[in-house]
Amino acid sequence: MNTSNTKAFGTKAADALLEEMTIARRDVLAKDVEIEILYCGVCHSDLHTARNDWGGSQYPAVPGHEIVGRVTKVGNEVTKLKVGDLAGVGCMVDSCHTCESCKQDLEQYCLNGFTGTYNGRDKHIGGHTYGGYSEKVVVDEHFVLKVPSNLNLAAVAPLLCAGITTWSPLRHWNVGKGTKVAVVGLGGLGHMAIKLAKGLGAEVTLFSRTPEKIQDAIDLGADSVIISTDDQQMKSVHGKYDLIIDTVPYVHDVNPYVATLNINGTLVLVGYLGGLEPILNTVPMIMGRKTVAGSVIGGIAETQEMLDFCGEHNIVSEVEIIKMQEINEAYERMLKSDVRYRFVIDMDSLKS
Amino acid sequence: MNTSNTKAFGTKAADALLEEMTIARRDVLAKDVEIEILYCGVCHSDLHTARNDWGGSQYPAVPGHEIVGRVTKVGNEVTKLKVGDLAGVGCMVDSCHTCESCKQDLEQYCLNGFTGTYNGRDKHIGGHTYGGYSEKVVVDEHFVLKVPSNLNLAAVAPLLCAGITTWSPLRHWNVGKGTKVAVVGLGGLGHMAIKLAKGLGAEVTLFSRTPEKIQDAIDLGADSVIISTDDQQMKSVHGKYDLIIDTVPYVHDVNPYVATLNINGTLVLVGYLGGLEPILNTVPMIMGRKTVAGSVIGGIAETQEMLDFCGEHNIVSEVEIIKMQEINEAYERMLKSDVRYRFVIDMDSLKS
Ligand SMILES: [Zn+2]
Ligand SMILES: [Zn+2]
Ligand SMILES: [Zn+2]
Ligand SMILES: [Zn+2]
Repeated sequence: MNTSNTKAFGTKAADALLEEMTIARRDVLAKDVEIEILYCGVCHSDLHTARNDWGGSQYPAVPGHEIVGRVTKVGNEVTKLKVGDLAGVGCMVDSCHTCESCKQDLEQYCLNGFTGTYNGRDKHIGGHTYGGYSEKVVVDEHFVLKVPSNLNLAAVAPLLCAGITTWSPLRHWNVGKGTKVAVVGLGGLGHMAIKLAKGLGAEVTLFSRTPEKIQDAIDLGADSVIISTDDQQMKSVHGKYDLIIDTVPYVHDVNPYVATLNINGTLVLVGYLGGLEPILNTVPMIMGRKTVAGSVIGGIAETQEMLDFCGEHNIVSEVEIIKMQEINEAYERMLKSDVRYRFVIDMDSLKS
Repeated sequence: MNTSNTKAFGTKAADALLEEMTIARRDVLAKDVEIEILYCGVCHSDLHTARNDWGGSQYPAVPGHEIVGRVTKVGNEVTKLKVGDLAGVGCMVDSCHTCESCKQDLEQYCLNGFTGTYNGRDKHIGGHTYGGYSEKVVVDEHFVLKVPSNLNLAAVAPLLCAGITTWSPLRHWNVGKGTKVAVVGLGGLGHMAIKLAKGLGAEVTLFSRTPEKIQDAIDLGADSVIISTDDQQMKSVHGKYDLIIDTVPYVHDVNPYVATLNINGTLVLVGYLGGLEPILNTVPMIMGRKTVAGSVIGGIAETQEMLDFCGEHNIVSEVEIIKMQEINEAYERMLKSDVRYRFVIDMDSLKS
């Protein structure tokens, strides 16, 4: 298969800094779309993959799965997009297309495993996939999203991961007018959860450990903020919420939040992969038919639905634009939660 | 308020045997129904309350919340039943009638706390409520169920707790034709879960630790049995079930069962009140949108629905009839799971 050399930014080892490198991109196949990447959001997964925090990272690693850009080439069977269109790519670039999940537009739960935008197995040219910290990307049209033209393009990028990760549970658990939603944690995911839940008509509360977040949350659209370390405030929302989107990315006690669910309420974990410690107490779950669930990103059709919704409701992420060369510093700042609320790389900087 | 002395069987202390005693029952109020108790099922909660295993037991304790009998008197505002009707009483004899849960026919989740059939606060004559190990009971008509006349009355009794406890989650999670249901544990609750899920048209699997249960489960209607200690068998049902009813009453590892849920599948705990140990792993929950929930008994309307369904489908519990005087021995046998599948007391024995 023909490939072309493509400028990218990645790392050669878990303990190395990210630096400029050259990767191969395949030439467009019949159903492929080639996209010139204009902006790429910086997700926590990028950092964890670069540093092999979860194990299984392959090197060189080129992260980036919040990609927006412009179509520069299409294969001869492509119908969804044409050259010049704005386009987006999120966390997936392929799946099996045949399993029960894929057939239901739930590619994120592909029973044969979806192909990650980076660190996945590249079915076409072998080796592993490279993400959006690069000049361009070539992706099967099924996994390419159409991007509304009325939005700030840089601020659209984080919708492709942070946005859809919160949109999918909001939709799956039928959030709408009158629904009481709470969001745990105000970071990249949390701030999108607030905006999207509010956009859907819900009453939205942020749970935060620090009063410093109150004004930010209100500015983002939250109706109220509950300081989770304040027992009195926690008691005041006992049994209140229909849905809690828990975005906290590290181990934490979910029991105090479960107590704030109403009958039939659900707490959805979207940020923390691991064991629930302190242990989950079943008493309030049984005595109040409360539910704890998990959810990961979202399907392609659902992602398109979200982008269209964001176009209509003028919803984008809050971003801080950086140059590609500033990525190592940005990772350090992310580890200190020193970002409101998502770094986005202006990929023009890679050309210079 | 006028009361009458009523023969009962109960215990005066956590470490005492149950024995005959006299309790007071109120005379019927305008909306009350007096029921001559013909049969009373023996639930694990009876034993735990008698022995104060959960704390909070009040003495003398008269257990029993799987009550069937015949109406002997009604208050002048009663419309639901008349003298001579068959009637049932389950785990609740009152609730607040005004909270959000009560208004939705979810008395079991009454936000002000429902009144248990025993060991609850008696709002009428003070002290605590006494259960069905007695000659008669007086209950507000709202909490009295109509019992189909075509069923074996003794075998109906366990429907009032074991039956509704499994029926409610089967209905709430929309079990019907084509649904794949698994049941963990084959006791009083488990055997009813199999019968009711099968009655609803589901494909039903029992998870059991021992091959001895296989024939029993098939006889009860299960389509298959998976031996949960056999890794090969567990792998064969990976990602299969829409709903798992987990009836195990002691701490146990739910992670192997969560792995057998399909995308959107739910494991409902109905038997174990406590902390989930070993700790629940969120990875399969997030990566497969799997859910862990709890459920307790069921509402009154839902209980009536179940009794009517059982009448139409000829479903009852498997029971072993005992005399009231054999209750202490029965408790010992229950602790050894030496019962297929529910003891039911023939209350005629209390008269002799
Ligand atoms: Zn991401
Ligand atoms: Zn698939
Ligand atoms: Zn019971
Ligand atoms: Zn109530």
